[in-house]
Amino acid sequence: MGSQTAAVLPAIINGIDVQTAVGTIEAIKADKNLARFQFRVRNRWIDGTQNRSTIKDFYGAGQEDKSRSNAFELVHDEPPILLGNNAGVGPGESLLHALAGCITTTLVLHATARGIVLRQLSTEVQGDVDARGVLGLDESVSPGFGQIRIRMNVKADCSDEELEKLVLYAKEHSTVYNTICRPVPVVLERAPN
Amino acid sequence: MGSQTAAVLPAIINGIDVQTAVGTIEAIKADKNLARFQFRVRNRWIDGTQNRSTIKDFYGAGQEDKSRSNAFELVHDEPPILLGNNAGVGPGESLLHALAGCITTTLVLHATARGIVLRQLSTEVQGDVDARGVLGLDESVSPGFGQIRIRMNVKADCSDEELEKLVLYAKEHSTVYNTICRPVPVVLERAPN
Repeated sequence: MGSQTAAVLPAIINGIDVQTAVGTIEAIKADKNLARFQFRVRNRWIDGTQNRSTIKDFYGAGQEDKSRSNAFELVHDEPPILLGNNAGVGPGESLLHALAGCITTTLVLHATARGIVLRQLSTEVQGDVDARGVLGLDESVSPGFGQIRIRMNVKADCSDEELEKLVLYAKEHSTVYNTICRPVPVVLERAPN
Repeated sequence: MGSQTAAVLPAIINGIDVQTAVGTIEAIKADKNLARFQFRVRNRWIDGTQNRSTIKDFYGAGQEDKSRSNAFELVHDEPPILLGNNAGVGPGESLLHALAGCITTTLVLHATARGIVLRQLSTEVQGDVDARGVLGLDESVSPGFGQIRIRMNVKADCSDEELEKLVLYAKEHSTVYNTICRPVPVVLERAPN
């Protein structure tokens, strides 16, 4: 997108600074190494079904990010029926939260790039788990989610056809969506004791 | 596991109530319908890269769960380099948090079932994303995580061989791990406008 075209767009669309977005995309087009991101989470077991993650640093756009002055701390627990005390959401729920958020942000970014103003965007996500897989009671049952369903409510200043294309594009370009519906290699190694 | 065997185990191992765990497993063995769980997340876009999820109800063990008096609210945002204001972690980081927490809880539950007392358990998770996939700059680049690595630090009152088997078993039975490393169907539908 040339600077003349960008100049006639509003400075902010959908809460996104359009010039910054265009600048980021142009920088990555010019140097693909700037596209490499590495996200990091440190988690520690507290007791029972409770564990906590600390999230702060990451690598991206050619450098270690320094923008976060404090770390985020996120808590997991399970409800009593799954042997916990409801001190936090369960890990499966965190995964559905990740999916909902990623589809949403991806849609907002691509709507902004197309100059489409969003009026409302919400999602309901449901995911099915058969606990026999997790408990190892039946090795023919996958421990993973069997199916995940997203119902999206989105209103925008564009035609229904444009909106349909936008939703499809967001789905096809969401990191978390494509991590769940495609197989992604996960390597686990133990630190030496 | 018979009640006589369970009776000689400590009441609590690794913060898990052993009798409750045994009771849950026996109930699911007797009626596989009790193994069906459905987890739910409601997410709404706030502005820009910020969105929030509300998590409360779920279905499991043959009924709607009523144990949570209040909903959990989780916030997503992005750092400035990804056009946000650091009001929360990014969705990709939520996914890594889900993975770390799920591997951890699965390991704790199976250690408890084996009578293995854990002394310490922490994980560091790293995940690689190439932003060209997300931005649609190169359709040959997956928008999903390219690879995810987990480094686990675990100490337990058992032999190294038993610990190795336990870690492998936890990995093979973790819901989130198996949702990421295997393809899981995700269905997206739009609510009618």
